[in-house]
Amino acid sequence: MTRIDDLPIRDELRGKSPYGAPQLDVPVRLNTNENPYPLPEPLVRRIAERVTEAARSLNRYPDRDAVALRTELARYLTRTGGHRVTKDQVWAANGSNEVIQQLLQTFGGPGRTAIGFEPSYSMHALIARGTGTGWISGPRHADFTIDVPAATAAIAEHRPDVVFITTPNNPTGSAVPAEAVLALYDAAQAARPSLVVVDEAYVEFSHGDSLLPLLDGRPNLVISRTMSKAFGAAGLRLGYLAADPAVVDAVQLVRLPYHLSAVTQATALAALEHTDTLLKYVEQLKQERDRLVTELLAAGYEVTASDANFVQFGRFDDAHKVWQQILDRGVLVRDNGVPGWLRVTAGTPAENDAFLDAVRDLKKEHSA
Amino acid sequence: MTRIDDLPIRDELRGKSPYGAPQLDVPVRLNTNENPYPLPEPLVRRIAERVTEAARSLNRYPDRDAVALRTELARYLTRTGGHRVTKDQVWAANGSNEVIQQLLQTFGGPGRTAIGFEPSYSMHALIARGTGTGWISGPRHADFTIDVPAATAAIAEHRPDVVFITTPNNPTGSAVPAEAVLALYDAAQAARPSLVVVDEAYVEFSHGDSLLPLLDGRPNLVISRTMSKAFGAAGLRLGYLAADPAVVDAVQLVRLPYHLSAVTQATALAALEHTDTLLKYVEQLKQERDRLVTELLAAGYEVTASDANFVQFGRFDDAHKVWQQILDRGVLVRDNGVPGWLRVTAGTPAENDAFLDAVRDLKKEHSA
Repeated sequence: MTRIDDLPIRDELRGKSPYGAPQLDVPVRLNTNENPYPLPEPLVRRIAERVTEAARSLNRYPDRDAVALRTELARYLTRTGGHRVTKDQVWAANGSNEVIQQLLQTFGGPGRTAIGFEPSYSMHALIARGTGTGWISGPRHADFTIDVPAATAAIAEHRPDVVFITTPNNPTGSAVPAEAVLALYDAAQAARPSLVVVDEAYVEFSHGDSLLPLLDGRPNLVISRTMSKAFGAAGLRLGYLAADPAVVDAVQLVRLPYHLSAVTQATALAALEHTDTLLKYVEQLKQERDRLVTELLAAGYEVTASDANFVQFGRFDDAHKVWQQILDRGVLVRDNGVPGWLRVTAGTPAENDAFLDAVRDLKKEHSA
Repeated sequence: MTRIDDLPIRDELRGKSPYGAPQLDVPVRLNTNENPYPLPEPLVRRIAERVTEAARSLNRYPDRDAVALRTELARYLTRTGGHRVTKDQVWAANGSNEVIQQLLQTFGGPGRTAIGFEPSYSMHALIARGTGTGWISGPRHADFTIDVPAATAAIAEHRPDVVFITTPNNPTGSAVPAEAVLALYDAAQAARPSLVVVDEAYVEFSHGDSLLPLLDGRPNLVISRTMSKAFGAAGLRLGYLAADPAVVDAVQLVRLPYHLSAVTQATALAALEHTDTLLKYVEQLKQERDRLVTELLAAGYEVTASDANFVQFGRFDDAHKVWQQILDRGVLVRDNGVPGWLRVTAGTPAENDAFLDAVRDLKKEHSA
């Protein structure tokens, strides 16, 4: 039998494992920040209608520029983001991962570097590796907020070509204040003209506002978004960005032609017709997220302030052991490898009750 | 207004244009090798059914490993390719372009090189550039067949990490004999252990057989395929590969997690249920392709022998001028930049008649 290491793969891939959380069959899955609410049945029917229409010309290539979809995404951002966005400022791809990959192919790549402030969304570093971009791990405070003086110093020292800022941050949960983002943007432009990517995958769950208004007059700023969380469509794989139209032109130099299928475009357009309904689920999830924070604190756990649809909780001498103990009680949470901490996604009220019962039970056991 | 060149993009992207044929609104479009037959209505209904089912759990991430889809693709290859293929040997992505990108990220990349024998599918070189892989343009004979002694010499000289062989070749149309592929494979292994990618996007239209049986005992050989052509599903963006299971394991080190949406997986599975119907269209298209060859020759044109759903024809002093003259007659063909030649896709009988009328008309004009 041939093994991976028998093949002529790149040296830096040797001994690595594919990224991804365990996909376990467990009653309560609160490990990948999915939205627990299935799409409402009228939307499911609308998807079927639009996909049927798309399927009738599936023998033809899709709209390479996804103009209708980008127009509707721009309308959504304008309505909800406090800032007018046009379709020329929007680009979409198969998940925000592909958006980030295209950005790194255009602005990063061999001989260039990117910085992120860790712990953060681990795909930023992995996609950097996959695109040959050098990775720099930037600092945070012990409470997981970005240490702005240290971060700007790191930018001045390393002069990265791309800067990632995740807000609300994953897996820790807190939003980054606009002033901090501006300080990092200015530091990045002073070091060299570099691209600053603000990953707002979870922004719809935030107590504060989107940073979309910061795009004005900042051509090297990009806001990335996804339909996986607020739109309850993780299975659709639709990520997008808003930026200066020149950035949208630039990523088209590296995007695979016809990267976004006609079926994906049709489904996303259907979901965007039902934005209001989907955003009501977001409101419920924000309340549940706040309840998780309150109840975890009441049960004697520490939590990180959360603006997302998940909560980081701790602290544990052996987080992985606690992960297993919670799993033994039928609830799957996430061990992101942050020492002392675990992450739980806000699920339905019943799912959250099951999780809270499990962690209260653990406390009882320990004090018994 | 900010222009692309004002942004901190990679130097090698400066001054480039996005890849893609002009998407013009013309009565007869024979320029992108699409299948002219829309999916049959029973298949459209089946797609709607399967997508409806997928949409009901669209809030969850899709099956990251696409096991059901890979199982059905393996079954299709086993039935039609003259060789038993298992799901562990199959990998799927958003178009064969993404398959090729993943292969180059794993086996090519910075500091490595790939060779192709040009003219061939131009995305091989473009994706090499996008992944930081050096590109080597290998030789062909004047009749566009691969010059095997010159090609093996080029491999021995340059010692590429990845070798691309497109069969049937695009845009020229001819299949590469198995002996030639074996000679290139052996040369590539002698130079250094390197990956040989046989791009069989058009193989279902060939007079000969798939090269799948060559996979036996050759762990560095990959066959890539697509549902865009024979399955009449260019809008679906579903490409796949067959290779040693270790190659499938290896590309998972670079694939973006959950790269293939639940909607794409559902639609592809529906199409695979209708394989027999779709392959009947392939038979019609092969007849039409042969008719195009016969009639072009009868009208006084030269053609390259074709095993694909398109025909390369010429020769012209100014191919682009003839492209425009055919377009003026309402028929869009492809100018691939091969000096002296154009490419026409086999359409429906009526579309092909319109094309043949146009090119006969041009001949009359020239001899008048």
